[in-house]
Parts: sequence; structure tokens; C-alpha cells
Amino acid sequence: MSLLDPLFRWEIVDALFDDRARLQGMLDFEAALARAEARTGVIPAAAAQAIASNCRADLFDHAEIARAAALAGNPAIPLVKHLTALVGKHNADAMRFVHWGATSQDAMDTGCILQLRAALGPLDAELARLADALATLARKHRSTPVAARTWLQQALPTTFGLKAAGWLDAVNRHRDRLPELRSRALVLQFGGAVGTLAALGNNGPAVAQALGEELKLPLPDVPWHGHRDRLAEVAAAFGLLTGTLGKIARDIALLMQTEVAEAFEPAGKGRGGSSTLPHKRNPVASAIALAAATRLPGLVATMLAAMVQEQERGLGGWQAEWETLPELIRLAVGALHHLADAVAGLEIDPAKMAENLELTRGLIFSEAVQMALGSTLGRLAAHDLVEAATARARTEQRHLRDVLAEDPTISKHLSSADLERLFDPVQYLGSAQALIDRVLQAHTSRRLPAAGKSE
Amino acid sequence: MSLLDPLFRWEIVDALFDDRARLQGMLDFEAALARAEARTGVIPAAAAQAIASNCRADLFDHAEIARAAALAGNPAIPLVKHLTALVGKHNADAMRFVHWGATSQDAMDTGCILQLRAALGPLDAELARLADALATLARKHRSTPVAARTWLQQALPTTFGLKAAGWLDAVNRHRDRLPELRSRALVLQFGGAVGTLAALGNNGPAVAQALGEELKLPLPDVPWHGHRDRLAEVAAAFGLLTGTLGKIARDIALLMQTEVAEAFEPAGKGRGGSSTLPHKRNPVASAIALAAATRLPGLVATMLAAMVQEQERGLGGWQAEWETLPELIRLAVGALHHLADAVAGLEIDPAKMAENLELTRGLIFSEAVQMALGSTLGRLAAHDLVEAATARARTEQRHLRDVLAEDPTISKHLSSADLERLFDPVQYLGSAQALIDRVLQAHTSRRLPAAGKSE
Amino acid sequence: MSLLDPLFRWEIVDALFDDRARLQGMLDFEAALARAEARTGVIPAAAAQAIASNCRADLFDHAEIARAAALAGNPAIPLVKHLTALVGKHNADAMRFVHWGATSQDAMDTGCILQLRAALGPLDAELARLADALATLARKHRSTPVAARTWLQQALPTTFGLKAAGWLDAVNRHRDRLPELRSRALVLQFGGAVGTLAALGNNGPAVAQALGEELKLPLPDVPWHGHRDRLAEVAAAFGLLTGTLGKIARDIALLMQTEVAEAFEPAGKGRGGSSTLPHKRNPVASAIALAAATRLPGLVATMLAAMVQEQERGLGGWQAEWETLPELIRLAVGALHHLADAVAGLEIDPAKMAENLELTRGLIFSEAVQMALGSTLGRLAAHDLVEAATARARTEQRHLRDVLAEDPTISKHLSSADLERLFDPVQYLGSAQALIDRVLQAHTSRRLPAAGKSE
Amino acid sequence: MSLLDPLFRWEIVDALFDDRARLQGMLDFEAALARAEARTGVIPAAAAQAIASNCRADLFDHAEIARAAALAGNPAIPLVKHLTALVGKHNADAMRFVHWGATSQDAMDTGCILQLRAALGPLDAELARLADALATLARKHRSTPVAARTWLQQALPTTFGLKAAGWLDAVNRHRDRLPELRSRALVLQFGGAVGTLAALGNNGPAVAQALGEELKLPLPDVPWHGHRDRLAEVAAAFGLLTGTLGKIARDIALLMQTEVAEAFEPAGKGRGGSSTLPHKRNPVASAIALAAATRLPGLVATMLAAMVQEQERGLGGWQAEWETLPELIRLAVGALHHLADAVAGLEIDPAKMAENLELTRGLIFSEAVQMALGSTLGRLAAHDLVEAATARARTEQRHLRDVLAEDPTISKHLSSADLERLFDPVQYLGSAQALIDRVLQAHTSRRLPAAGKSE
Repeated sequence: MSLLDPLFRWEIVDALFDDRARLQGMLDFEAALARAEARTGVIPAAAAQAIASNCRADLFDHAEIARAAALAGNPAIPLVKHLTALVGKHNADAMRFVHWGATSQDAMDTGCILQLRAALGPLDAELARLADALATLARKHRSTPVAARTWLQQALPTTFGLKAAGWLDAVNRHRDRLPELRSRALVLQFGGAVGTLAALGNNGPAVAQALGEELKLPLPDVPWHGHRDRLAEVAAAFGLLTGTLGKIARDIALLMQTEVAEAFEPAGKGRGGSSTLPHKRNPVASAIALAAATRLPGLVATMLAAMVQEQERGLGGWQAEWETLPELIRLAVGALHHLADAVAGLEIDPAKMAENLELTRGLIFSEAVQMALGSTLGRLAAHDLVEAATARARTEQRHLRDVLAEDPTISKHLSSADLERLFDPVQYLGSAQALIDRVLQAHTSRRLPAAGKSE
Repeated sequence: MSLLDPLFRWEIVDALFDDRARLQGMLDFEAALARAEARTGVIPAAAAQAIASNCRADLFDHAEIARAAALAGNPAIPLVKHLTALVGKHNADAMRFVHWGATSQDAMDTGCILQLRAALGPLDAELARLADALATLARKHRSTPVAARTWLQQALPTTFGLKAAGWLDAVNRHRDRLPELRSRALVLQFGGAVGTLAALGNNGPAVAQALGEELKLPLPDVPWHGHRDRLAEVAAAFGLLTGTLGKIARDIALLMQTEVAEAFEPAGKGRGGSSTLPHKRNPVASAIALAAATRLPGLVATMLAAMVQEQERGLGGWQAEWETLPELIRLAVGALHHLADAVAGLEIDPAKMAENLELTRGLIFSEAVQMALGSTLGRLAAHDLVEAATARARTEQRHLRDVLAEDPTISKHLSSADLERLFDPVQYLGSAQALIDRVLQAHTSRRLPAAGKSE
Repeated sequence: MSLLDPLFRWEIVDALFDDRARLQGMLDFEAALARAEARTGVIPAAAAQAIASNCRADLFDHAEIARAAALAGNPAIPLVKHLTALVGKHNADAMRFVHWGATSQDAMDTGCILQLRAALGPLDAELARLADALATLARKHRSTPVAARTWLQQALPTTFGLKAAGWLDAVNRHRDRLPELRSRALVLQFGGAVGTLAALGNNGPAVAQALGEELKLPLPDVPWHGHRDRLAEVAAAFGLLTGTLGKIARDIALLMQTEVAEAFEPAGKGRGGSSTLPHKRNPVASAIALAAATRLPGLVATMLAAMVQEQERGLGGWQAEWETLPELIRLAVGALHHLADAVAGLEIDPAKMAENLELTRGLIFSEAVQMALGSTLGRLAAHDLVEAATARARTEQRHLRDVLAEDPTISKHLSSADLERLFDPVQYLGSAQALIDRVLQAHTSRRLPAAGKSE
Repeated sequence: MSLLDPLFRWEIVDALFDDRARLQGMLDFEAALARAEARTGVIPAAAAQAIASNCRADLFDHAEIARAAALAGNPAIPLVKHLTALVGKHNADAMRFVHWGATSQDAMDTGCILQLRAALGPLDAELARLADALATLARKHRSTPVAARTWLQQALPTTFGLKAAGWLDAVNRHRDRLPELRSRALVLQFGGAVGTLAALGNNGPAVAQALGEELKLPLPDVPWHGHRDRLAEVAAAFGLLTGTLGKIARDIALLMQTEVAEAFEPAGKGRGGSSTLPHKRNPVASAIALAAATRLPGLVATMLAAMVQEQERGLGGWQAEWETLPELIRLAVGALHHLADAVAGLEIDPAKMAENLELTRGLIFSEAVQMALGSTLGRLAAHDLVEAATARARTEQRHLRDVLAEDPTISKHLSSADLERLFDPVQYLGSAQALIDRVLQAHTSRRLPAAGKSE
């Protein structure tokens, strides 16, 4: 665990991408390969067993492999060398069948895919947790009026529930993307030195088939050593997710401003305090999500740029992926985890929301007035009339309602009861309830068919 | 047409993203909105007709709108103002119903979606053209031996057909992504000022429904003014595609090097010539695709970074999308178009491929020898033995076959006929044919179910 | 002018990067080359004159050159061809001396450098205009208290003048970077086909020297066809500048929020209005600067990625620069121009600033209290004591001063006059005035030595 | 040390950016602050000593600080808390003076600057080592002919020395950028909670001055908590450097291709071997540099994007820097270190270079012929004539010299001795020697004034 890991990451997923996990991913490939080759009669069953039983990351000296990797150009080469030596200690005959017919990229890529698969479970669960927390907010605050803000300016009333529904809708879209990703990206890598499986003679397809079964990974139509769109797509999906997390976080942080004070990340001992300002309550989870949203675009760009890999195996592009993909997954899931916590404990202040809706002295309701007038006066005429009234209200620092009440043209079309109603936020929410229903219904209906999905 | 457009872009798709098309997209929204509101009884039918009949981009002074957009902050505001004035000239009553209940972002986003939809057809066709050209290469050269290269070093023989099959497989994966994109991204944007459709009172859902039907765009569950994952996903898809185009282009450019000379972009008058070197034949299409692959990652990163948009409408993020998304689509499709041309006319030199396979004096076949020996001597022993022989072959600048023939240990296990066979590239292609078949079969089977896809 | 140009760009600098300017840049190179070769006796003086007199962009059919560039791979090749034909019409002999000894990249790169040099003047002037406007704000509001905000939370008082001084300090740092850039980046590109000037025999150095003099461009030690750090550094400098512009814009937009309302972009007819919300005043200039700050990082990344250019001339990387560098300059300068306008007309509301300082009911002064107590009680004890008081003030919704006044431990150390003073923002500004002085002095002293700088 | 550190990084610089170094950087700030405050009479000398003597990273439980940082939002807050407790164990009175008047960002930013300063020494040394190795190559191979390649096509002859001189020139430009960076970026961060040093009353300037002296860091005109151009400029400088490293690496990898075989990274036990292909010699250092060049653009983009930080302290942007800046420095210096090794041991094969110059059967000399003819026939006529001859040479697979010798027009202007000379690479190198001299002279003259530079 490094100094900033607990802040930026989530230990559950972090552990799936540490050095041990990376080595174990490759070793899982090697063990499964041996078993698959034994099943297909390519190597003796005893050899497979000897190999598989040594494929445990804690049997290896990580530092030694690290140093040798710097010379070899990748960690799979020294790992295979050490595995071979280890197997040889127990079974001299089995030794020669280690890594049989495979290339280091087979082990590294498949290992990476296995790590990725392991991460999708926790990811899915955290996404569901965040979505459920958002659904709860949408339900609970479906009628809580709050100022909608465009360009950071109060525009019209909306409800906090609709805001939460918008967040929820976006989060669920990311959940929709996962099965697509899963089916396209989670495939075996197995091609031998140049993707022909030449070293296996005619046994290539049978071994590949068996290997896929061992690892429960589907076979791609062709090895993909030089074609990296699968991994870049994974990166892009995490980039998209983090964009949404950043958007939610930005919204929360803005709501949490001293001057707005409508919603707050949960408090707690040691949480979000300042070293010198005892009264402050910093939006720590939002900062984490925003930091991730600042970092992911560059990391996704790296994965896209790295796609230009030469011929049957790339030079530079492939190597650029090794740390970038795990890093961006860890950051995205870390942000998700922290934000899910924050949303689950989000404190809402409906009274302050109502108070803020009065800040413009009624200007926020000018569209309502304008639409009400527009149906009889025409959109433009109503616009001009209301614009004049708002200017006057602003100059004279009076409430728009009072200014309007004095205007004879307006009085002709709107009674004072009409005016009162027009300045009630609840009266100008349009389709908000219907939209919230639609999002919540879609959210609820996700649970049912979910059974048949997975792996 | 700007100076570099024909080089980097494709006019067919370029025309879908020029200023006229941008204005027309917004005007198509306004016309459909008027029709939908007439259908649902919100505005008079005559007004709708008066509005719709003026929604033609060539009726507007683009420069004037451009100048006003600089003050207003977006081009939709002055466009609506000009449209209103134009409608007013013909029908003073209709004037007030222009843009009724909508916000400028509704027009801009939906217009953008319409432009995007128009581009997917040509994109699909060009992808199919590239895929078919690659399939032809894969079929024709399924047995043409060529050196597979890893780390830019000759590694083992493969066939040019398998190389083409790898390219094809990747291109078809991008075609798989399109329908997903289409179903998720191509949706209506319609929410009014803050996404509640407040200005339409209770008519919001009905108008939205009718508007979607008019434009043949599905309705999202909730407006997405502040949630941009749909557009960012489109950007990412084009980024992924361009990564593959760049990979193919890099491969072609490497094959076309003076010293390799195995494949060539088609020649033609004025094509790829140098201003000073009359003998040169530059890989122009590859350069275009590589330039696009260099540019897209940064542009996709921008779209991801722009996702962090504030509350109900963003400040900076939304504006950052306006030129970035069209730009990246144009560059990606331009690269696709030029590369499809190059691949369709690609010249292959099988004789040079065969000649290059001899460059290492047999070293490229060392794995074949090693595997043949390995089955009896064990992988490591065989590795060491062959390594020694290759070292000697290299030092003495002799053919590996001749060095091996002298080694008594090897002679014990391999006859001279065995050796001869081991140095024939056709004999060491493993599963190449099966893999090519798999890719070609998947390619062929795409045509059948495609009927049911639609739009 | 395209639809979004006036919004995102500034016409003065935009005109320096349009198609005409690009062609003229190359033609200026060709004219100067001819003159330099005449001066050094390499070509006849009459030929040079005939060539130079035809080097005017409006003599050429841009569309035809554009179409030919798509085949040739760059616009310089067809431009030289057309120039040669044009010269030939007037002087058949001169024709053969067009582009003598040069390569297309010489013309394109030097042309680009000339365009860049032309842009540095207006850039410098706009930077000075922004800096002066910021200096005026810093001076005028040096004692205007405003809440300093960290993590978007009110933290302590500061002055608006210090905020402006911070902006000014950063802007002036970018002005410091310009001369460095100018001296490193603004150099001639002249190397012939591969950088050896081989076609000029022994005359290379003399012609290069004369050419540099003609164009008033220093000679680099060696041609830089494949080494692009100069241009990438220019890109980075604009990226850095835009980061600062985005930071200032973000600050302004936050101050302009309905709930904060402390500073406002200048109003004006058609400026920042909403299509449906007559009362809104959108921070349009801030949005433009923030959009630029969202886009530049990706564009700078492209320029950095493009640096990996192959051997004596790149394939893909070079081409990726052609539109990216001008684009990022235009966006950065456009943002600068619009933001300078906004800052020059920025409206400040000191009363609202003072009002906002009261929002926390004194909590914002807790550090002042803590420090006052800390000197006698110790930092930690004071921290704990004040933390408890702030908690109570928050719970009971009372002013911190009143809560503190009741605490006997505190009364022991602080009189009620002490307390009153501690809650006066003006009393807790530390070194603010000294810091403002330092920044303003540095700003003022820039004007004097500036004379000796320049070109 | 993580699994991939020795491959991608350099332990000397890596150690300057590990967790211990990060904590020590902050502790060095705290110690110096205490000493400075004692010197200026703000805190007792005994307290300063008690504090300073506990500012050693190994006295702290890193894991505990890491966990607390996740709640606090940064590691400085818990570090200060632990330091305070630690000091308290020895000196209860000193305890209250820990971190006096500072904010966590002061400690973190200044700590980061100290780490950065420590890294500049080794960076400088490695840059010098690479530059010297390149200068040696430039000198030794100043007359070794090699094919210059543009668009990956052989274009004209050049010398390997000129190629090395181009690399050297670029590397030295990065060395020029360092002092600028050093003077602009290496400054103190000290502003207290919001940049006013309010907690220090009137002592702010004096303490700041003393603190800068303690740490040997100049004072900026104003604290820069929210202005991050200094750090982003550092990032950009490393991005530029890595672009050049990537360019050199790409060139080397291309020269090392099996089919080109002109230059080779040094061999060595366990270096660049393949797991299955005993004959391969992979360009490992080039791959590392190319991987870094693929990763840095995205990381620099992150630093630029992170510049948009809110008001007196950012939310998300600042946090995004914490891992990104160290990461990009480590990757850049790692690439530099490995590439310096590779260049220092680079094996050159002049014979193969000469052989490759014959691959085009003389076509590479067509410009030489064209220029020779052009001086009498005119550039265009010569171009057409040579183009025809090259076409014929290509079709008939004959040497261009022989085709030309048969052409009566050519024979009129060129004797057979002329022709022979025109096809000698040494005869067509133009200003290569002069350019190499210029670069080497500039390199040599760097050593002399360097004395006065430094820190």
C-alpha cells in the first residue's frame, strides 16, 4: 500500500492489480496451459501437474524477476525461467514442458484479462451500490424543489429528485456498457511467438480450445498480439464512467459551497477537516472523483495512442499499456467507491434549497411568467415584456412579482392569484415527475433479468 | 473546403459537418418541434407550417449568426432569433411559436445527433469496403509466406493472409460496435431550459414523443443536457477505430520501406511523389491514417475531460465539444476513406517476401528446430543448443541449417531431410490456415443477419 | 470565417492562420530563397526577381492546390508546381530556379515559423492588456475584503486585490516565457531533401545564411526536419497560458454564481443572454476560456505525441502537426482576447463580498481566534477549543463570536474588544498588502527594460 | 521496488519520489519552518530544535498516515498530527509550534519542489552522459555514409554522424531548457491557509524570507496555491524531453530491423532475448523510451488540465497532480537512463549501411543527377528526364547509372566519369560536415560556462 492508495483507490480492487496479482495472472495462464496440453495429449499429465502445482506467485522472488525483466524487456520471460527452474527441482522431466508453445505476450495478455475479469465483479457491485443510493435520493427528493443551474446561474426550479435521477440514469448507462465490454474484451490470448501457434504443429486449435475452457475464457477468432482495441475499449469505458463520476462530484461540490449549502458529503471523524480551519468540511470524495476525472482522459488517450503497434508485436505501444490500464482501472474504481460512500450518506438541506430559490427575488420564475403570457401575447412580445420587468426588478432590487403586479399590460392577462401561483416553484416543474418515474422504473426493472447475465 | 481538407478528410462526410449542416441540423429540430407541437395541439397547424417552411439553412446569413453567437455564447440563440424574424415576415402569428418550450441546447444537441446519424451510413459503407478489401487480401494471400515481425525483428514465418485476417478481424470488431453506439447515442435531446420541459406544462411527454417520431429518434428516459457520456462514447468509438487504422497504416508503411519492399500503396499520377526525389513513392494514405491516429487520442481525451459539466448545463465543457466531436469524426472517416483506397489497391510482392525470409540465414527457423528438438531433448536443452548454433551461425555468417548439420547431437535427432523441411516456411505455419478460415467465415456470415439492423 | 470562429477565436490572429496565410508563409520562403540564392550567386538575379514577384497567395487557385495536396501528401508540392508554372509564363528561364535546393518541408516549416512570429506580436499585446486590466483590479481592490475559498469552501478573508494580484503574477509569468520561446523556436528551417543541403553543393551554408537574413530568422545549428521539440514547446507554452486563462475564468464564473454574486463579466446588448431565461447573465467569456482550457491539453498532447518522427522526415507525426499547432494557437489567443475583454470590464460588488463574509456566522474567523489563542494555549489546545466552539455555533446556528464570548477559558485570554477585532476581516489579512505590492512592483518594472527585448 | 520499476525507471531518481521521500520533503519543510520561525523570533529556539529533530520520515508509520490521508483528503494533515504528537512526547511546549502559520499545501508543494530539485542533478548528469555518447557517435561516424530516409523511404545519402549530430542538437536543447525551468519552478510555497500568511500577523514576510534561506529556495512574489503553471511547465519540459528520446529510440529501432541492420543496441546476458526465439535481439531500451514517449503526452495533458484550480485552493485539480508529476518524471528519467546506456554501447555496421545504399540500384542518387543536369537543363526538365530514367530503371530492374549512360541527352551533359562520381554517396553530402562541426562545437562550448550555473 502506497501513501496515496487509500485516498485514491479501493483496496478490494487494488489488490487485484498489485505485483502479486500480476504474477499470479501469468502463472494461472501457465498452469492452465499445462493442463490444457495434458488434456489434449501434447504433454504428459504428470508434467502438467508438476507445473500447475508450482504456479503460485508467493513461490517467486519478485525483486529478482523485476531486475531480470529490465534486461529481458518484460516480466514474463524471467518468470517462465524461474518457473522452469522451480519445476525442475521437483520433476526434471516436467521442466521442459513449461510454457510449451506459448509466448510471453500470451501469458501477459491473458493474465491481464484474468485480472480484469476479477475486477468486474466488485466494479459491478459498486456501480449497483451507487445506483441504488442515487435511486433512493431520487425517490425521497422527487418533490424537493431546488434551483436548476445552467452556466452556474440559477435558471428555473427543478427538483433534487430529478437531479438525482439524471445522475442515476447516467450511472445505469455505464452498467449497460459492462456486458458488452465483457463479451468483447474478456477473451483468451494464445498465439505463440507470432500468432500462428506454430510450435504446436497441428495441435494449436485443440490446445487453444482446451485452454479457453480451463480459464473459462472464450476464444477469439484470431490472436490479437498486435491488435489492442479490446483493451483500449476497456480503458475508454472506464474513462466514460469516470467522466460521469466527475460530473456528479462537481455537482455535489458546487452544492456544498458555503454560499449554496444545499447538500453535503457525510461528515465523520478525521474526514474532510482542514489542518488550520476547524470549521471547514471539505468535499473529499468529490475531490477524489474530480481528480480521477482529471487523470483518466490522459490515461485513456495513452491507451488509444498505444494501439498503433507494429506488425505481429509492438515496440513501445504494448509496453505503454502495462501500467496504464491497471492504473486507470484502479483510479476509476477508487473514485467510484469513495463517491458511492459519499452519495449513500449525502445530507440534503431542503430548507436551504427553498431559501436559495428566493435569491433572485423571483427572477428565476421569469420563464414561467413569460410562457404564461406567451400563450396570449406571443413568445417574443412576452419575452420583451418580461425582460423589461426583470431589468426593473433588478435595478430597483424588488421582487419580480411586485414589479409585474404594477404593470397594466400584465394585470390584463394575469390575476394576482395567477401571479402567486407562477412564483411557486412546485407549479413550474413540467414533466419532472414523469421523468423521475421513467428513470426509477428503468432502474427497478434492471434487477429482474440480471440473473442470466454474468460471465 | 480548406487547404488540407481533401488530404485529411472525405468530402462525403465532411459536408455533413460543415457550417451549413450544423445550422440545418438545428433547423431540422425546430421544424420537427413545430410539427410535433401542432400534432399535439400545442401550437396551431398553420404556425407549424410557417415555421417548418423557413427552416432551410440557405435562408440565413451565416456570418451574421456567427458574429451574434460570439455575444450570445452559442449559435442557436441568434439562429432562433433570425428564424423568428423570418417566420414573422410571412406569418406574424406563427412567429411567437418558434422554438416553443425548447432551449438552445435542445436544438444544438439534437442537431448534432442528426448530423451524427447521417454520418453513420457512409461510415458503415466505408468500413465494409475496407473489410471486403482486407478479406480479399486474406483469401488471396492465405498461403503467401512472409516474415512475422515482433519488436521490429523477424521472428518466425507467417502468411500475408493471416496478417490481413488480423486486420480484418479488428475492423469487423469496430463494425460490431456501431449498432451498440447507434442504439445508445442516437436519441433525442429535448428538455427545455433545465430539463423539466416546464414551459410545456403537462404537454411535455406528448410533445417529446411526437418530436421523437418526427425525427425518427428514440426518446431517452430523461434529458441529458449535463450528462455527456453518449457523445463521449461516440468519440471513444472513433478513437478506437482510428487506432486500428493507424495500426494497419503503420504495418503497411513498414512493409513499404525501401529495405523491406513487400507491399505498396497503389501508385498514380501525382500520388506520393516527392518534390525533389523523383524515384520516391511515399505511403501517403498511411501517413494520413497515422496522422489521424496521432490526433484522435488527444481529441477523445478532450471529450472525456469535457464530461465534467456543471449541474443542469455546463460551462466550458459543453462548448469544448462543439468543434471537437465533428473534427474527430471527420479525421477518423477521412483516414478510413484514404486507407480503404490504399488497401483496395495494395500491391503485394510475394517474391520479395520470400527473399526477406532468407535474410537471417535460417535464424528465423530456429524455433522450429528448437521445438523439433525439444520434444526429445526438452525445451531448455533444445533452447540452449539452438542458441549456441545461432550464435555460431551469426559469428561465422553461415546458414543455420549448415551449422546445425555439423552438430553431432543434432544429427542424432534430425536427419538432413528433417532439417530441410524445418527450414521451409510453409512447414512452420501452425494454425495459420484455420485462423484465416475462422476470420473469413465470421466476415462472410456478417452479411446475412445485417438485414434486420435498420437505419 | 466559420460559424464558431468569432465565438472561440480572435479575428486578428485567426487571419494569420487561415489558408491564405499558410500559402503566403510558404511563398515568402520561396521568394526569400530565390533572393538569397541570387545574392550568393547560385541563381541569376533576374530569376530571383521573377520568382519573388509571383510569390503572392492570391495568384493561386487554393482549391486546386488542396486537391493536389491530397495526392502529393502535402500542399507545398503542388504549390511549388503551380509557382513554377506561373513563373514560367513570365520568364521561362527563371522557372527552373524555383524552390532550388529546397524540400517541401523547408517551405512548410519556415512558413509556419513566419506565421508564428506574426502571431507573437498580437499575443504579446493582448497579454499586456490582460495584465494591465488585472493590475488595475489589484490596485483598486487591494483592500476590498472577500472570502478566500479553498475546496470551494469559505476559508478565511483575503482581499479581491490579492486575488487579482495572483492572476496578474501568473499572466506575467507567461509573458516571461515568450522571449525564451521566441529565441529557441523562431529559427529557419532549411536543409533540402534530407537535411544536408546536398543539392546546393558547397553553397549550402552561404545560402542558408543569406536566407536567414532575408527572413530575419536566425539559423539553427542543424536542420530540424525530424526534431520537433521547438514546435512542441510552442504548443506547450500556449497550453500553459490557456491553463491560467481557464483558472481565471473558473474563478470569475464561480464568483458570478447567483448565490455568490461578487463579480460579473460586463453586460452588453446580446451578450450572455439566454434564449428562454430573460433574467440570466451568462459568463460567456469565462465559458470560452474554459472551453479552450478543456481543449488545449489534448492538442498539446498531440504535439508531444507527434514528436516521435522517423529518421530524416516523419510519417504521420509531421502531418499531425499541420492543423493542430495553428488550431491550438487560435484557441488560446481567442480565449485570451475574450477574457481580456471580460476582465477589463469586470464588475465588482464589494458590498456582496462583505455580506458573504458573514455567511458562516463568524466561522471563517476561527483561525484568527485559534492563532490568537494558540500563542498562549498552544496550537493544538486552541484548535480543539475553537473546534468545539464552532461545532456549537453550527448546531445552535449562532454567531461564533457569541459562543466564544460565553466560554470562560476564552474570556480569560480574550477581551470582548479582542473578540470584536478578531471578527473584522480587515484585521486578519496578514501579508496581503505586502504581497500585492510585490506583484504590482514587478508588473510596473516590466515596462522599462522591455525596450531591448523584441524580435 | 515494484515489478516493472527496474524496466521503466531508474532507481537513483526513483528513490527521490517514493513514499519516504514524499514524507521527508514535507518534513524538511516543517523543520525549516520551525528554524525560520525561531530565527525570526516567532517561536522559541528550543521548540524549533525539538521539532526539527523529529522531522525524519522513518519515525512515522507510513501506513497509518496513508489511511488517515484518505479521510483528511491529503497526507500532510495526518503527518502534521503525528509530528505534533511525536514532538509532544519529547517537549510538550514545542508541540504547539509545529506547522505554525502554515497550511498543508505549503508543506506538500514545497516538499514536492525539494524532491524535484533533488532530481535535477541526476537528470542533468544523465543528459550530459547521453549527449556525450551522441557526440562521440557524431565524431566517429561523421563520414560514414548511410541512407537518409524520409517517409520511411530511402531518399538521399547522409552520414551517420549527421544523424547523431541531429540527435545531439535536440538533446542539448533540452539541457538549455533546464536552467530556465530551475529558476522559474524551484521556488518556495508558503502562504498559510489562503495565501495571506494571516496567522503570522506582521511576521509573514520575515518568516518567508528566512524559510526560503533555510531551504535555499527563492521566494516567489506571491504564494501559488491556485496557480500551477510552474509545475505544469516542469511536466511539459519532461514531455518535450521524452518526445526527443522517443524519436531517437524510434530511429534506433528502425535501424535495428532485421532488414536494415545498420545499428544495434548493445547485447548482454539476459538482454533483449526472446522467450522462444533464440536468435532475436530486441531493442529493449528503445521500447522503454518509446513506451515513455507514448505515456508522457497523456500525463502532461493531465497536468495542463489540472491547472484549472478553483480560487485559493483547487478541488480535484490539485489532487490530480500528486501522483502524475512524480510519475512522469520517473518515466522520463527512466527512459533517459536506459537510452543513454543503449546509445553509449550502440553498435554500428558501416558495411551494412553502404550495402543498403545500393538497394535502390542508384535511384537514391537521382536528385544528385537531377541537380547536376538541372544547372544546365533547368529543374523541371531535369526532373522529368530523371523521372523517366528512374521509371525505366525500376521496370527493367537495372541500375539507374546504366540506364542514364544509355540516354543520349544525358551523355551530352554528363561524362561517364561524371556519372560515376554522381553515384558515390560521399560526393553528395552537401553541408553535412559543416553542420556536424557546428553541432559539435556548440556541444563542446557548453562545458566551459557551465561552472557558473547550477542551483
